[in-house]
Amino acid sequence: MSKMAQPTKIIGLRVRDIRFPTSLTQDGSDAVHDPDYSCAYVTLVTDTDMVGHGLTFTLGRGNEIVCACIKSFAHLVIGKNPLDIFNDFGKFWDDFVNDSQARWLGPEKGVSHLATAGIMNALWDMWGRIEQKPMWKLLVDMEPEKLVSTIPFRYITDALTRDEALGLLREGRKDIESRVKTLEEFGFPAYTTSAGWLGYTEERIKKLCKEALQDGFTRFKVKVGLNQEDDIKRVGIVRQQIGPDNILMVDANQRWDVQQAIGWMKPLVKYNLLWIEEPTSPDDIIGHKTISQALQPFGIGIATGECCQNRIMFKQFLQTGALQFCQIDSCRLGGPNEILAVYLMAKKFGVPVCPHAGGVGLCELVHHLSLWDYCTLSTTTNNRMIEYVDHLHEHFVDPVVVKNGCYMPLQKPGYSCEMKEESLAAFEYPSGREWKILLKNEHYRNQHKNADA
Amino acid sequence: MSKMAQPTKIIGLRVRDIRFPTSLTQDGSDAVHDPDYSCAYVTLVTDTDMVGHGLTFTLGRGNEIVCACIKSFAHLVIGKNPLDIFNDFGKFWDDFVNDSQARWLGPEKGVSHLATAGIMNALWDMWGRIEQKPMWKLLVDMEPEKLVSTIPFRYITDALTRDEALGLLREGRKDIESRVKTLEEFGFPAYTTSAGWLGYTEERIKKLCKEALQDGFTRFKVKVGLNQEDDIKRVGIVRQQIGPDNILMVDANQRWDVQQAIGWMKPLVKYNLLWIEEPTSPDDIIGHKTISQALQPFGIGIATGECCQNRIMFKQFLQTGALQFCQIDSCRLGGPNEILAVYLMAKKFGVPVCPHAGGVGLCELVHHLSLWDYCTLSTTTNNRMIEYVDHLHEHFVDPVVVKNGCYMPLQKPGYSCEMKEESLAAFEYPSGREWKILLKNEHYRNQHKNADA
Repeated sequence: MSKMAQPTKIIGLRVRDIRFPTSLTQDGSDAVHDPDYSCAYVTLVTDTDMVGHGLTFTLGRGNEIVCACIKSFAHLVIGKNPLDIFNDFGKFWDDFVNDSQARWLGPEKGVSHLATAGIMNALWDMWGRIEQKPMWKLLVDMEPEKLVSTIPFRYITDALTRDEALGLLREGRKDIESRVKTLEEFGFPAYTTSAGWLGYTEERIKKLCKEALQDGFTRFKVKVGLNQEDDIKRVGIVRQQIGPDNILMVDANQRWDVQQAIGWMKPLVKYNLLWIEEPTSPDDIIGHKTISQALQPFGIGIATGECCQNRIMFKQFLQTGALQFCQIDSCRLGGPNEILAVYLMAKKFGVPVCPHAGGVGLCELVHHLSLWDYCTLSTTTNNRMIEYVDHLHEHFVDPVVVKNGCYMPLQKPGYSCEMKEESLAAFEYPSGREWKILLKNEHYRNQHKNADA
Repeated sequence: MSKMAQPTKIIGLRVRDIRFPTSLTQDGSDAVHDPDYSCAYVTLVTDTDMVGHGLTFTLGRGNEIVCACIKSFAHLVIGKNPLDIFNDFGKFWDDFVNDSQARWLGPEKGVSHLATAGIMNALWDMWGRIEQKPMWKLLVDMEPEKLVSTIPFRYITDALTRDEALGLLREGRKDIESRVKTLEEFGFPAYTTSAGWLGYTEERIKKLCKEALQDGFTRFKVKVGLNQEDDIKRVGIVRQQIGPDNILMVDANQRWDVQQAIGWMKPLVKYNLLWIEEPTSPDDIIGHKTISQALQPFGIGIATGECCQNRIMFKQFLQTGALQFCQIDSCRLGGPNEILAVYLMAKKFGVPVCPHAGGVGLCELVHHLSLWDYCTLSTTTNNRMIEYVDHLHEHFVDPVVVKNGCYMPLQKPGYSCEMKEESLAAFEYPSGREWKILLKNEHYRNQHKNADA
């Protein structure tokens, strides 16, 4: 591949509202959500052919708000030299989220942080393309000093200083090459949620377990939280199907209050569960700590993070021992800059990071991060794995490859979130070809009304 | 006033992007923000003449995002009978914030929660108008069972159950009438930030202190955090001007990391400060606890809350003893429903609530809540006060009245956030009369660019 001319200026930002009608088939439904997997899709255009593609994930309604917010933030990148950004990326990030007026919208949380993620993901994608490396390799090859310069340390120095981060990264450089080889040969462990969605029949669960086992999966997750009896039954079926030695987790998607979580879990502990995921509000550090202590005697850990808003919340989950599995989300946090901070804090506190994935493009994004973690930080796959859901990968130019229950490292330059032009054209909301048809469907017709302003 | 025909249906929602050019004069500037005080202004229209006006406050840029979000949520109220909403308001609130797709944008935080506040404030305004009572009296007269039915208890039952809330409210009903009389005669304590903004000269500070003392103020707040030497000087001047017995607080607007906050405060403790406000990230419960413990020997409490995103975060601040003064914001939390939950938790944990105010309409809104607290819950003004800033009140139909350093109870029906039509027309962004002129001003010309999408 020949090197393109280096860009000197970002001259435009395009954002598209992309939605997939997954609620028609209830793919992805859980105790709380009924999603149409969607994303705000960002393309940064430069003064050369160089581009950067990024996205941020949502569940459908409200995706237009995130798109509007990305547009509103565009002036923070347009006109900048991308190389200047990469030369002091941590500072750029900190300035970006601390605009003296817009920071009131967060700060660093919710819609404005989802929008930040979309733009930051596009910038990292561009950096990978400029260096002609896949994101994971860009990170693995980066000198510790350079990597640390991309990270925002504001508000976390009581848990992790820049010097401590440097120390951890320098330690991790030993034997990198052997770990890269291992990854390229065997990949990085995935777990599957395919058999575990709510509302599946016993027959379907059994069939899906069998298929997953045949595909080489040894780690399984089941959704719980709507009906306790049904949960006991479904978790029992899955445990029976996968046998006593495979790994099993459950996920309540924030369904319970604190004491309710503890009570609901008691009859499930006999199934030897590795974790209960999102037992309660993602904001409740103290609540998770209480649940963690109650379930510790049964060997069940707490996993949370897909809705954990920023590094400051993760810091406290780690400081208090409120979680045992740290589930970063590549669009909820403000892009790789902030995610790297969370990986480093997790390393310091001895907690494995097991990224949230699924949705649209999340598998593509996060696999890069866990590959980097394995090569240069955790240096182990022990208790580490990435969620895998077999949805919507066909829309990506460079989709993830899962073999024998493991993510294989992607090798094309960038952060792997470029979508096919035909998919974008078909699923752009509400004007895309597919939506012109879908919006005539009663399922959608009444859902998307706006104010008569 | 004759009773209007009862509405049976909300038939429309109008939202307007209203901004005031306060950054021109640096009113409201602090160590982190340089605001154009703004609001998303909501009007609910019914099938009768009855309306409800609400607003949510922002600092300018990004106000259009909140407006877009309110529009996007309009379908959740349009078509509903307002009386049905008020009959089971807690359930309505819970459903509103838990839309199975849009909740991903928060949940319950940031832009989507600011939007929720705007709509909920308008609903409570309408309720007051229907009952022909000012908001504080609507609340004071409400039976405990009814009041509790408006509150969302999800995720807080480990700190406060519905029954505990009922008990607290029943206790508070003794001698209500005498407290109502006291309020109507003397009002509720205010504190002033007028002399305390960054960048004021010594002369100006002295003049403003003198004026505030003459106006009857006995409680003062000073902004800190940009330059330590300057802070020591300005806090010293104010303490000297107001004398040893008046109350003095400082406010860092989230400027510091945890250890930095402790170090910065050490040379200021000699000025006998009641609280340090927002020493660090509003998300950092554990950090605030650390700072609180370090400053306790000096008699300085921690105040925070204007950027505290929801009742779940306040719950933890209270559970851990990380704050000594609870500063609810009437637009950051999801309207009175959630704010009432915070007041009740604060009562249980023995922490005074001192609302954040200033901005646009915040004084008007929060004074109702503290009046209710005094009449039926805290039953004392000890350590309780509301921020007062003398900005922008002239744009409101029923502006707050502060006499002798105290907020006097407003008496017109509703929640007092109705703005004058001429102000709305002049300051609607970007099409209002004033903005047509202001956008030719260089100060604004380059700030408000969007993507070239």
